[in-house]
Amino acid sequence: MTETPRKRVLSGMQPSGLLHLGNWLGALENWKVLQADYDCFFFVADWHALSTNYENTSRLREFSRELIIDWLAAGIDPARATVFVQSRVPDHAILHLLFSMIIPISWLERNPTYKEKQEEIKERDLATYGFLGYPVLQAADILIYKPDFVPVGKDQLPHLELTRELARRFNSLYRPVFPEPMEHLTKFPKVAGTDGRKMSKSYGNTINLSDPEPVVRQKLKTMVTDPARVRRTDPGNPDVCPVYDFHKIFSPLPVIEQIDRECRTAAIGCIDCKKLVADAIVGRMQPMWDARAELMNKPGQVEEIVAEGSQRAATVAHRTLTEVQEAMNI
Amino acid sequence: MTETPRKRVLSGMQPSGLLHLGNWLGALENWKVLQADYDCFFFVADWHALSTNYENTSRLREFSRELIIDWLAAGIDPARATVFVQSRVPDHAILHLLFSMIIPISWLERNPTYKEKQEEIKERDLATYGFLGYPVLQAADILIYKPDFVPVGKDQLPHLELTRELARRFNSLYRPVFPEPMEHLTKFPKVAGTDGRKMSKSYGNTINLSDPEPVVRQKLKTMVTDPARVRRTDPGNPDVCPVYDFHKIFSPLPVIEQIDRECRTAAIGCIDCKKLVADAIVGRMQPMWDARAELMNKPGQVEEIVAEGSQRAATVAHRTLTEVQEAMNI
Ligand code: SF4
Ligand code: SF4
Repeated sequence: MTETPRKRVLSGMQPSGLLHLGNWLGALENWKVLQADYDCFFFVADWHALSTNYENTSRLREFSRELIIDWLAAGIDPARATVFVQSRVPDHAILHLLFSMIIPISWLERNPTYKEKQEEIKERDLATYGFLGYPVLQAADILIYKPDFVPVGKDQLPHLELTRELARRFNSLYRPVFPEPMEHLTKFPKVAGTDGRKMSKSYGNTINLSDPEPVVRQKLKTMVTDPARVRRTDPGNPDVCPVYDFHKIFSPLPVIEQIDRECRTAAIGCIDCKKLVADAIVGRMQPMWDARAELMNKPGQVEEIVAEGSQRAATVAHRTLTEVQEAMNI
Repeated sequence: MTETPRKRVLSGMQPSGLLHLGNWLGALENWKVLQADYDCFFFVADWHALSTNYENTSRLREFSRELIIDWLAAGIDPARATVFVQSRVPDHAILHLLFSMIIPISWLERNPTYKEKQEEIKERDLATYGFLGYPVLQAADILIYKPDFVPVGKDQLPHLELTRELARRFNSLYRPVFPEPMEHLTKFPKVAGTDGRKMSKSYGNTINLSDPEPVVRQKLKTMVTDPARVRRTDPGNPDVCPVYDFHKIFSPLPVIEQIDRECRTAAIGCIDCKKLVADAIVGRMQPMWDARAELMNKPGQVEEIVAEGSQRAATVAHRTLTEVQEAMNI
């Protein structure tokens, strides 16, 4: 009996700052599920970070290191998944260059997020060649590992479709080298930030994986609640309260039911309710904090994991690039 | 007494087919002069060739090899100059990617040759991302060697200026890494083709370095002359005859003077005149043909030269890339 090889999954994150609860509950928890069943390649997209942050790269290396530490602390297992840094696999850059020669500019200009993101990040000058071309780099990042699946949210489907189109174009111009990766549609839970809006670094409303316990508790203390509940004696509506959303994610069912009841009757005050949710969140984060602290003290171990993962990735990438160069006669 | 290090010169050629007399008298003769005085880096721009020829790469590898053989046969000395192939130095691709992140698209769109070349090569689809970005690759090719000079014709000055602008932009965004290369203005002699127009592969009027003697003689036999000289007895005007242009390049002064005289009086016929020029050209090409034949029989030697040159280039390139990555914190 031969073993069926595990299907391959490829996913990356930009090192653009500290990971927060939203990233954790969204991407990382999903990665943990994936690594159990698939041959996963998880990478720090440090070159990608330049496409929007080229003007300030002072903390890029630090962010990359911290990102890996967050992953490991959150349970990504380098014995199961290949964890690496994009810039340590030069073949991504070569495939990016080769793809650049065959991709019509119109494909990039019609990319819906191109104009959107330029609008969104108005304060920086994003009219660069690399910003227009980031789907080319993305396609190279993906296709060089010939993954079976790429985990994406619905909004990223057009990008993956562009990657597939590029694979088809290459295959028909030269010779079939690239299988078309399928989407692994992922529903990311919506995690609210301390101000009630979506948790996002750009809103400054995040709880970061690296926040120490007192900071987490403080952030929760000042978190917005049901705005209609002004006095302690006013009954509240948990359905419109972001604190209750946290309960639903982090608290055990009996507590969730208790809050639902006691909030509506003003039997519990927001201060106590927040203390309960803080306990639940801290309890869930504690193992990660412990793992994080241990990793921070062992920079050699983190470096070893990255070096080994990057080496493994480079071997796979180079195999594909060799095929590409054969196909193109380079 | 310490020796002043030789100034560095960088120049490349695309492997887009066989070299002809025009390339030889223009670029290669200039390279021979340069290699005597400068630390020269001469490279086969095979990745660049993709920007206009991505649709047909079947002979790319062969063209690259032939190009190197032409260089060596024409007198480029690998003991003096570093002869290498772009695609064997992966760091060009990485610097290209990094530069892509900081170069405004507007710089590329205003590049005068961008629209021109698209017009010129209408039969191929050049609306690709890589074609728009070829000055980015060019800048990476140049700056990664920090050359003092780049030999350019007048028409290529805007490209070099773009390279310098990009160097300045990088230096001011991060830290001064790139000296601005100066132009080494080169006056390329205008060499006419067999039809009297400028010798160019796209006109099909070339005499190639790889043409065997009978082919060269045959091409010269059918070359156009002073169109007013219809009959043998008509006097001609050498000043409007492309055959006479060849005499001026290849024949000894007494022969040039003889033709000038005897053409005007119809003392010499075009057939004899062409025979004289064929003898002169063949005489000049013979040593190159001999060298070429020898090199064709020693593929191992050519490969060794390229491998050694590419290794030398890669070492220099990597030193620069390391500085770049330090400056950008990657
Ligand atoms: S008691 Fe809890 S759920 Fe109700 S409004 Fe206050 S914080 Fe929100
Ligand atoms: S004699 Fe020579 S120079 Fe005069 S027209 Fe004929 S080919 Fe030209």
